[in-house]
Amino acid sequence: MHALGTHLLIDLKDCNPEVLDNLEEVRDAMVSAANEAKATIVDVSFHEFNPIGISGMVIIAESHLSIHTWPEYGYAAVDIFTCGDQIKPLEAAAYLIERFECKNPSITDMKRGLLPPFGEKHPHKVTEDKLRIFSQS
Amino acid sequence: MHALGTHLLIDLKDCNPEVLDNLEEVRDAMVSAANEAKATIVDVSFHEFNPIGISGMVIIAESHLSIHTWPEYGYAAVDIFTCGDQIKPLEAAAYLIERFECKNPSITDMKRGLLPPFGEKHPHKVTEDKLRIFSQS
Repeated sequence: MHALGTHLLIDLKDCNPEVLDNLEEVRDAMVSAANEAKATIVDVSFHEFNPIGISGMVIIAESHLSIHTWPEYGYAAVDIFTCGDQIKPLEAAAYLIERFECKNPSITDMKRGLLPPFGEKHPHKVTEDKLRIFSQS
Repeated sequence: MHALGTHLLIDLKDCNPEVLDNLEEVRDAMVSAANEAKATIVDVSFHEFNPIGISGMVIIAESHLSIHTWPEYGYAAVDIFTCGDQIKPLEAAAYLIERFECKNPSITDMKRGLLPPFGEKHPHKVTEDKLRIFSQS
């Protein structure tokens, strides 16, 4: 069955809390994960909160990666939403499980945009042979 | 049951394709939706792709809102991930259904971070009585 996108909802339990509360580490892990997935990075934004915790997102041409960490519980919620055939979201997920030293990961793979006619493929919107124009605002 | 966060996965089918491909409209709708939910906006990033489609994220203190549009199919995938008791994610969802003139919405409400002990509430990480320090990178 063809869908417009694949959305991995990832619960990372029993991670290393020091890594989860380190802004540089979390950002680097997420950007590297996007690269592992062969994604095209468009924008990166990470923030740390007081007293604890980090949120961030990597917008990619193929959709996005996001993370919210609760270091006090050793837990992070990660989303990897991708489109197209070239991208490898599970490799990004595997990479993050290792970077965060997660001992208890779970992954739910959800299809987004399952549109009729269900037997047909819906072309990916950003094509490789056309010039990509990214405008940020 | 208490969870760290609530994640609304929203499929908006049969929307107005002109709205879905208008960068200003999409960004304004998402920012307004965050305000409808009484969220605290931390960062906003929206991008339009060639030939068609928009992606964007609003990072909030309470997690994030994201959108990816496929105007050619009248479809948008929206995620509203929120934490804490004060925020109103369903109001944001209802607002977006109206802004995008969606005739066929569906919402899945997923709990993120269901951690033991399951009967106890896990305090929200960003507390109102402490100074919030947002550092962006």
